[in-house]
Amino acid sequence: MLLLIPGPVTTDARVKAAMAQDYAPWDNDFRQTYRQVCDGVLRTALASPDEHAALALPGCGHFAVEAAIRSFIPAGGRLLAPSTGAYAARLQKLAGDAGRVAVPLPVGPTERIDPLAVAHALEQDPTLTHLALVYSETGSGICHDVPELARIAHGLGRRVIVDAVSAFGALPLELRALPAVEAVVLTANKCLEGMPGAAFVVARRDSLEAARGVAGSWSLDLADIYQQSLQPNAGPRFTPPAPTLAALAVALELHREEGREARLARYTANMRTLYDGVRELGLAPYLTPALQGPIVVNVRAPDAPTWNLQLFVDALKRRGYVLSNFYNTEQPSFRVGCIGAFGPDQMRQAVDAMGGALRDIGITREAAGNGGFFPLPLTA
Amino acid sequence: MLLLIPGPVTTDARVKAAMAQDYAPWDNDFRQTYRQVCDGVLRTALASPDEHAALALPGCGHFAVEAAIRSFIPAGGRLLAPSTGAYAARLQKLAGDAGRVAVPLPVGPTERIDPLAVAHALEQDPTLTHLALVYSETGSGICHDVPELARIAHGLGRRVIVDAVSAFGALPLELRALPAVEAVVLTANKCLEGMPGAAFVVARRDSLEAARGVAGSWSLDLADIYQQSLQPNAGPRFTPPAPTLAALAVALELHREEGREARLARYTANMRTLYDGVRELGLAPYLTPALQGPIVVNVRAPDAPTWNLQLFVDALKRRGYVLSNFYNTEQPSFRVGCIGAFGPDQMRQAVDAMGGALRDIGITREAAGNGGFFPLPLTA
Repeated sequence: MLLLIPGPVTTDARVKAAMAQDYAPWDNDFRQTYRQVCDGVLRTALASPDEHAALALPGCGHFAVEAAIRSFIPAGGRLLAPSTGAYAARLQKLAGDAGRVAVPLPVGPTERIDPLAVAHALEQDPTLTHLALVYSETGSGICHDVPELARIAHGLGRRVIVDAVSAFGALPLELRALPAVEAVVLTANKCLEGMPGAAFVVARRDSLEAARGVAGSWSLDLADIYQQSLQPNAGPRFTPPAPTLAALAVALELHREEGREARLARYTANMRTLYDGVRELGLAPYLTPALQGPIVVNVRAPDAPTWNLQLFVDALKRRGYVLSNFYNTEQPSFRVGCIGAFGPDQMRQAVDAMGGALRDIGITREAAGNGGFFPLPLTA
Repeated sequence: MLLLIPGPVTTDARVKAAMAQDYAPWDNDFRQTYRQVCDGVLRTALASPDEHAALALPGCGHFAVEAAIRSFIPAGGRLLAPSTGAYAARLQKLAGDAGRVAVPLPVGPTERIDPLAVAHALEQDPTLTHLALVYSETGSGICHDVPELARIAHGLGRRVIVDAVSAFGALPLELRALPAVEAVVLTANKCLEGMPGAAFVVARRDSLEAARGVAGSWSLDLADIYQQSLQPNAGPRFTPPAPTLAALAVALELHREEGREARLARYTANMRTLYDGVRELGLAPYLTPALQGPIVVNVRAPDAPTWNLQLFVDALKRRGYVLSNFYNTEQPSFRVGCIGAFGPDQMRQAVDAMGGALRDIGITREAAGNGGFFPLPLTA
């Protein structure tokens, strides 16, 4: 069974094998694994060990996004949060429920964040201390230019919090060159090709020192996790998802062997195979090639009376591929994750299987109708 | 390698096998697994499905304790929290950092909570809406009489939050008979013999309805998780630790086959084997038999000049047993978990190995000195 969802992803057999063991989380061997994983995350972020620290948090990416917002923005503090889609909306809600004020910046559903609009919004409102960005929007499939936007924020003296959950380990990120970035949030189970259950924040050490007493939640207090990490022979603060961390140690080693650029190239090849493949099936991707990111492709639902997402998902599953049975786009679509431990050959087989699944539910290339064909100029 | 720590515990091979798979968390098959796990937790709590719901939270037990306090006690609200040890202290800090007021009730380090003292404290201070209890204190090894204390709170019109992390699945709990209990917190990786990474709260449905907008944290908002759980074909809210949940489905089935009472009897046999065994080695348990709970035994460090906890832990590990390399008692001790997928025969071998490990670090029965012998009357 190949997972074609935007995470948790299909993992390597060696990663899975590390899950099937009992670990004692504060045993000296595991403390070493724990620090090794944090070091691997820090290295992957191209961070400066003197200036940055990688902190692990049990749970999911949203918890770590809330932890970063709580720890670095005081209650009542204000952040600019471009409305790039479903995950940006979640970030806004996480901030709001935590008593921080997320000021939305409108972004069209098929647009990248406009750097000039960000600069303008920050200039107009000096109370916005932070800019919060989703690097790869799972809802749309668009990747935003986080490095460029971070440089703009830096020029205006603002700090940046990056939800890089769907991007980290594939999309470019050189933290040591982006001093405005206060925190990058990631999880084990996306482009690092680890298992779900562990989230991380790579953050500035000076910000972590200044964050003491700010979070208003011990569970989600990055300053507290940081202080713990400074202890000799440091281990996890609370009970960690130990198998997930041990599996991530393996996954990080595989990532280091492959290299970040090669992994991005593989995902990009997966995406292109899928993108071109569904067009050959008579289906229309949601985005133009210029906008389409390498992580997730949303495909417009065929304009056919027999279309039914769940039936399509079921038919594809019988062929060995798992798709999401929901979507975040405004119009009906299905979404395909291009990340995980597989390459374009397997994606080509998946496209064939999609053709078979469409036939199963009575949709031929002709039946998909004009609505099924690409509605935007391919040169865009 | 047998884990003799108070959790995460040694698991059955079938539980481990379920960890080594990729799962799509919102796939219909996994949604079913998810609901099956929540149903299994609810059943194990002897709860009433009409009155209670079991909610899953990614992460560790402390996160779920904070979620329960945040969701059921408004900011500024007050709870009585008997100071039974290290985990009660953590509960107090979780509440305080979340802006709730935990009023401590002194409890001696080798005492059970005095029901009269609880009743008195609640009667004296009508602003204490809640009583928060740790069922099995890992710090000391004492189990407190949660059912009795919950009945007292009920009589005084107060609600109870129970940290049952180290108790759930072994110690008696019949939620349908304890209407004052608003929330019981548990994790997968203790007496349920699952893997770490998933926490749960079993809570009253009326309280969950009333809790909307109270938590001040979307991540830790039980009311939100509850609303999500009421959707048709409900699945997890955010990315769950899917392998841990799938492994827990297996562990819950094994728990159902064994039965709660039989599991408690096995752990009690493990505890007695260990308790009597270390006394035969010339060591002194921290608690009298009457106070000693079945989950974790703290053993006083030998009064010998060559005693060194880390060296002892290392020597024992070479023999195949993992102990904690820290302790929570006031005087030096080592602690032994009696829970997990093993029985008294294995515990007897572990005691033999402890004897060997003591010899390795130069401590004979005689060398342990009088300080090593049981300092409290055995009839207590």
